[in-house]
Amino acid sequence: MGLARFIGLSLKGTNGSSRDGARAVERAVSLCRNLLSEPGESGRFASDFWRAYSLFQAPESAHFFDRLGREFSPDPEEVGRCGDAYRREPSTTNLARLLRVVEPSRQELFRRLNTAPGGTRMLVEMRRQLLSENGQHPDWTAIEADLAHLLTSWFNRAFLVLRRIDWHTPPVILEKLIAYEAVHQIQGWGDLRRRLEADRRCYGFFHPALPDEPIIFIEVALVNEMSARVQPLLDPDSPVISPAAAHSAMFYSITNCQEGLRGVPFGNSLIHTVAGELGREFPRLRTYATVSPIPGFVEWLTAESRRQGGPSNATWSSLLGKLEPPRWFEDAQRSAELQRELTPLCAYYLLHVKQGEEPLDPVARFHLRNGARLERINWLGDTSPVGLKRSAGMMANYVYRLRETQRNHERYTRQHRIPAAWQVERLAQESGLARVRAIR
Amino acid sequence: MGLARFIGLSLKGTNGSSRDGARAVERAVSLCRNLLSEPGESGRFASDFWRAYSLFQAPESAHFFDRLGREFSPDPEEVGRCGDAYRREPSTTNLARLLRVVEPSRQELFRRLNTAPGGTRMLVEMRRQLLSENGQHPDWTAIEADLAHLLTSWFNRAFLVLRRIDWHTPPVILEKLIAYEAVHQIQGWGDLRRRLEADRRCYGFFHPALPDEPIIFIEVALVNEMSARVQPLLDPDSPVISPAAAHSAMFYSITNCQEGLRGVPFGNSLIHTVAGELGREFPRLRTYATVSPIPGFVEWLTAESRRQGGPSNATWSSLLGKLEPPRWFEDAQRSAELQRELTPLCAYYLLHVKQGEEPLDPVARFHLRNGARLERINWLGDTSPVGLKRSAGMMANYVYRLRETQRNHERYTRQHRIPAAWQVERLAQESGLARVRAIR
Amino acid sequence: MGLARFIGLSLKGTNGSSRDGARAVERAVSLCRNLLSEPGESGRFASDFWRAYSLFQAPESAHFFDRLGREFSPDPEEVGRCGDAYRREPSTTNLARLLRVVEPSRQELFRRLNTAPGGTRMLVEMRRQLLSENGQHPDWTAIEADLAHLLTSWFNRAFLVLRRIDWHTPPVILEKLIAYEAVHQIQGWGDLRRRLEADRRCYGFFHPALPDEPIIFIEVALVNEMSARVQPLLDPDSPVISPAAAHSAMFYSITNCQEGLRGVPFGNSLIHTVAGELGREFPRLRTYATVSPIPGFVEWLTAESRRQGGPSNATWSSLLGKLEPPRWFEDAQRSAELQRELTPLCAYYLLHVKQGEEPLDPVARFHLRNGARLERINWLGDTSPVGLKRSAGMMANYVYRLRETQRNHERYTRQHRIPAAWQVERLAQESGLARVRAIR
Amino acid sequence: MGLARFIGLSLKGTNGSSRDGARAVERAVSLCRNLLSEPGESGRFASDFWRAYSLFQAPESAHFFDRLGREFSPDPEEVGRCGDAYRREPSTTNLARLLRVVEPSRQELFRRLNTAPGGTRMLVEMRRQLLSENGQHPDWTAIEADLAHLLTSWFNRAFLVLRRIDWHTPPVILEKLIAYEAVHQIQGWGDLRRRLEADRRCYGFFHPALPDEPIIFIEVALVNEMSARVQPLLDPDSPVISPAAAHSAMFYSITNCQEGLRGVPFGNSLIHTVAGELGREFPRLRTYATVSPIPGFVEWLTAESRRQGGPSNATWSSLLGKLEPPRWFEDAQRSAELQRELTPLCAYYLLHVKQGEEPLDPVARFHLRNGARLERINWLGDTSPVGLKRSAGMMANYVYRLRETQRNHERYTRQHRIPAAWQVERLAQESGLARVRAIR
Repeated sequence: MGLARFIGLSLKGTNGSSRDGARAVERAVSLCRNLLSEPGESGRFASDFWRAYSLFQAPESAHFFDRLGREFSPDPEEVGRCGDAYRREPSTTNLARLLRVVEPSRQELFRRLNTAPGGTRMLVEMRRQLLSENGQHPDWTAIEADLAHLLTSWFNRAFLVLRRIDWHTPPVILEKLIAYEAVHQIQGWGDLRRRLEADRRCYGFFHPALPDEPIIFIEVALVNEMSARVQPLLDPDSPVISPAAAHSAMFYSITNCQEGLRGVPFGNSLIHTVAGELGREFPRLRTYATVSPIPGFVEWLTAESRRQGGPSNATWSSLLGKLEPPRWFEDAQRSAELQRELTPLCAYYLLHVKQGEEPLDPVARFHLRNGARLERINWLGDTSPVGLKRSAGMMANYVYRLRETQRNHERYTRQHRIPAAWQVERLAQESGLARVRAIR
Repeated sequence: MGLARFIGLSLKGTNGSSRDGARAVERAVSLCRNLLSEPGESGRFASDFWRAYSLFQAPESAHFFDRLGREFSPDPEEVGRCGDAYRREPSTTNLARLLRVVEPSRQELFRRLNTAPGGTRMLVEMRRQLLSENGQHPDWTAIEADLAHLLTSWFNRAFLVLRRIDWHTPPVILEKLIAYEAVHQIQGWGDLRRRLEADRRCYGFFHPALPDEPIIFIEVALVNEMSARVQPLLDPDSPVISPAAAHSAMFYSITNCQEGLRGVPFGNSLIHTVAGELGREFPRLRTYATVSPIPGFVEWLTAESRRQGGPSNATWSSLLGKLEPPRWFEDAQRSAELQRELTPLCAYYLLHVKQGEEPLDPVARFHLRNGARLERINWLGDTSPVGLKRSAGMMANYVYRLRETQRNHERYTRQHRIPAAWQVERLAQESGLARVRAIR
Repeated sequence: MGLARFIGLSLKGTNGSSRDGARAVERAVSLCRNLLSEPGESGRFASDFWRAYSLFQAPESAHFFDRLGREFSPDPEEVGRCGDAYRREPSTTNLARLLRVVEPSRQELFRRLNTAPGGTRMLVEMRRQLLSENGQHPDWTAIEADLAHLLTSWFNRAFLVLRRIDWHTPPVILEKLIAYEAVHQIQGWGDLRRRLEADRRCYGFFHPALPDEPIIFIEVALVNEMSARVQPLLDPDSPVISPAAAHSAMFYSITNCQEGLRGVPFGNSLIHTVAGELGREFPRLRTYATVSPIPGFVEWLTAESRRQGGPSNATWSSLLGKLEPPRWFEDAQRSAELQRELTPLCAYYLLHVKQGEEPLDPVARFHLRNGARLERINWLGDTSPVGLKRSAGMMANYVYRLRETQRNHERYTRQHRIPAAWQVERLAQESGLARVRAIR
Repeated sequence: MGLARFIGLSLKGTNGSSRDGARAVERAVSLCRNLLSEPGESGRFASDFWRAYSLFQAPESAHFFDRLGREFSPDPEEVGRCGDAYRREPSTTNLARLLRVVEPSRQELFRRLNTAPGGTRMLVEMRRQLLSENGQHPDWTAIEADLAHLLTSWFNRAFLVLRRIDWHTPPVILEKLIAYEAVHQIQGWGDLRRRLEADRRCYGFFHPALPDEPIIFIEVALVNEMSARVQPLLDPDSPVISPAAAHSAMFYSITNCQEGLRGVPFGNSLIHTVAGELGREFPRLRTYATVSPIPGFVEWLTAESRRQGGPSNATWSSLLGKLEPPRWFEDAQRSAELQRELTPLCAYYLLHVKQGEEPLDPVARFHLRNGARLERINWLGDTSPVGLKRSAGMMANYVYRLRETQRNHERYTRQHRIPAAWQVERLAQESGLARVRAIR
């Protein structure tokens, strides 16, 4: 298993028969029990466990997780009893007893496994595995939740360190940027170098227990005016401008690196911290904005066009058909026509199509929760194949006005109000669609 | 008021009337509620809270803690209901709901308060306050326990960094050693400098969120033979020997620095990590041992001598009397006589006088739990006033044999067996006392 | 010999008889010859030499320096010949030959001795020794000059690093500040700590080859108004003010640390670099000024009062007499009277008493060369015993106006014009003394 | 023009007419004069000069260097006079005066130009320019020599820092390795990464004034046995072995990075320092050896084969002919035959073909001067096109036995004895050629 590399193991031989596998799981479970019965802080059992664990193949992992779910959960009888006691008399003592009984012993186990060298990394990896198989094993959710609980506490903002990433950053970190960047792929070291030049900024959060691993990173372009298109920002041959003269900081990519930390919130902090850093370094900056994908637009449109009794199925199907020819956007007339028809729908999509109380579009949800405001919809903002596919090439600018984000954020979370430029609101009206919610 | 310095506040004015105080507490509680209802990771409310909190005087603190205990605990009804559900059907879903309901909202509050700059430090300080008043306010125990739970998780061994402390260490750290060292006080910078010379080593654990604060530190002397006395190790004018030639590493002081982290176990890890470091640096080291105080001996002897029907009240009272003249130990004859009588009693005290299953002596408990072995009792090992007072000047050597500590530790924790040199065991027999436990 | 400590030698035995000494010198000289005949960059001979050298007692040093002077100088005949050739035909080839012949082989020797670990430090120390005995050994001047030539080149501004010194600076450096500070002695670690608080700044130049050795350092107080007196700046119990509000940066002490680098100019660079740093950190700073001693005033006055036919011998003798009672300055009337008489003389002394073309006062020379301007004479500016003794307690403020220093500096060095406030010039006129120079 | 990038200039416009150029040179020369007449350490003129200099085109540079040669050399008359005086009376005073007069004022000028930010780098660059045009401008040699003198002193071993280069080294440095490596070109980041894996080591010397510039670097492979061929070491897909088990450290490439530091000796120090480092890290290392090119062999053979009356012109011409078919070495029979004939000639070439007293082959000269011994000649050691071309694919192993290098070095430099394995000596005998020197 590739896992072994995490702790620098060189593995000789493999687990042969399934009997060997069963024995290995048995041994791992017994190491867990030893570890839990230890009064001290000794780390030996923990290291032994990780060595065993990293040799597991899929069947052993599954078997081990099953036992972790069954045998390290709280005792129902005891829980019931302590719950009753606390209900009858909610005293300090009863609360203490209840808390002790309710916490799955897995949590203490994970805390102790964490003490081994590389332990934090292995726990993040374990959660990644659990998440990737959640679908098939609903009963592992509790294990995954325990890990999530601990990791959220350990990766508290107070323990993260902001580091600038540039051409002085060790390649052991940079190569991970190349590997992880998901929004706008990095095409090798030459592309990366351009993204770290004087008129670009890249920052990441790091955790002391994972020294060479970015947790999340953000890429920023310093430009004169708010960018409507992302391709110029990505062009490796674009000239480098003097950052001191820039008026706009464009956040054009933000990437969560650790699948095993999914759901732990870092992005809002990162954006606000970076905006603060940039403001100090470049007092002439006026605008902090994103140039963001609109990942769900075409998908929504397609779904709506197929829905029985949808608003305008025929029209929309024909619209979608016009997006099919490759490089359709190079035909100026067709492009102008599509722009007229699609941008109002896109504005409507971003402002009024909801999932629960929030926008259906996940990128919109992220930035609006952070207190940003929807500023502009850019026709042909991203003409890459993926950009065309997910949003007919449109991109959105979300603006972070540092004085308003707190208020925006509160209004958004309490009253579900979406701050937007009037141009975008007018566009949405032009769509002619009612402001009813398409609840999923 | 002194708290304000933690976050670099310069305070103007004070909380005047108790009405102002009540209002301040009200405001702090409402900031706590805001913070908890925030979906994001925003840190503003947290900073505002700490600013308010650091202005509290004793009455406001008390008032605030009362409300924290009352209003941020789990709801008894809901707990009972979820406990019942889990008792009936211990499913993943019921467990998840139970856990959510049982955890006091204080814990999430503390996690969010932690995100403010300096937050970790303030939480450690808050626990210190709570601990110092535990006696008067038993209902604050639950708050203190919640903090203890979080801090133990956050100060997990994986997140601590071992740093050598020497004459290159910033004085902002060194001055804390001078302030905190409790076992053998440091008499100013000259004394400290000697303790950091080539034949001494000092190591501390640090946490990234408290960069200039040692969590715990240990002082080591590199000498030729296992030291029987501590004064030569402390003498600021002693000659510096070449550490490469040393055969023994004497751990002569270990100090927990943060009262607010009381009970979080660091000492065992520190000793073992430091022994590993020393072994790598000095391959000629053969012995790792302490020269330790025996804090409870005289106290125990006094108590026994007064106890009705104690083994030998009269004799012991007269013995204790002989310890009264100042500098009695300079009278060679009296000293020899006392040695003959007291060392057997001391051996008996360390080996057979228990509190529960473990020795009454706290230092013995600590080292024996860590897997050390009681090697020797040293007459006149510490002739400082405090050394004379607590143990008639005797000290103990506990030896750490790295290959045996795990086995010793297991035997001690499971079977309560105390590993000791035969000389110490024979001494204890000479005391003529039965091996019955003096249970407290 | 104390020298040995520089290279961490533990010396066993000593050089006994003078015959042993002669042999040791012979060996050192022969190591020098070997080193010079080496084509490579090998450092072994160099280390051997330093080991031998560091064992020298005074007679061996003297003997060795004599031989260094005699045997490692250029050959007069060859020099004459090459000089003639270049005079006849100043070609590139003749110049190259001449330069090769003229450079004392000592210089190449020193460059090679420098390659040993600790070599730079030892060469600085060697020059210190030579300087300290220049008086008795005029023929060593050439050796000393060769070292000065090399050290000036090696300690070129480009190779010096400015470092802020504060409470995070390793004590191995801080203890040297305590040892070296000559202008206003540091009274232990408590005093030092106050000098490194938030409203103070201390900066030093360091050289990479002497990592723990400050070369020169400067102490600055951030205050509201230009300080007239130094005692308040030195008071360890003075309150710490917020530096962000300060308008004036007072340079109150500048100390050259390395006697062996005497004459290598660092001070001007240091002041200007530090002023630049401070300006960036504190945009509200308006005034950069010194509060400086006037070391030669009383000495000059005394000499003049004794000189036959001096301007006013009797008066001045009587004036000097009034300075004799201890703490005379506490008598307000006497103080006012003396102020009236002495400040004009002091202004005259600073502006018009010369040594060659420059002021007799060395501190005045230093700051005026740097482009500063004499701003104010402060009565009772330094009431420490040494301050009273050298200048009757007066101090001077020299102001650095960053836009004017270059012009001031040029006028001073070319036309010997001293920029001064009109108040100081008027004071000088009030002295009634002619503007004739008192040439020494 | 490219020069401007060194000091981060953004140049607007260009020097138009040659009249502008003449004015620019005039201005630069006058800045030089100002700089020299400055008594202080001010750096303003120096920065102004570099700004002007970096705008020079070829004609201005040439013009400027001419003036630097003419106007900043010592005065022949004065030199003659001082030379005479010292010849008559070689006193300290006369020596001091002579030295002052003889040193070209250029040297002081360069020392002052060095004080500007980036000055050292610019001076290294200036020497590079001078060296590249030495052929056409013999009178610039004196300027170049003055720079060489200063740079040799400034880049003294004592001021160089050894740094390990690995996958944590900033890419700003790594990309220079890719650019500079001349012996075995680095084919992009993937190739580089393999050269920095666990079983490879790379070290460089750095100078504090050029923080991101390697001065020289060396590449080492940790292998089991002394390598006969270089291709396996360069293979980016070769498996990574455990370095702890390696017995041999193969130095397979050493690269001087700074053309402007040509002739300043670093290589010997680097090899010895690195061997020391490796020995400490890997106590099992037994052999330190190179796998080196033999750059001059084919060239020599060709020249000899053409020389009238050369030893065996016809045979050698026919031999050389056999090397012409591409990939001739894949024909096993032809290869065996050529091996039989060429390896003895190569051994003869390395041992007996001289330039002056030393081998004609420059790589042999370098390693033999350093005290290495010629251990083995490897047939088909380097089958790259360049390896085939320069040495018919042969490579040499030079072994560094750390205990013998000093003795070898001395014998080589004093008696011109070449330490070699007897196998190599026997091979040379087999060539049948007399041990007469082929002096060039």
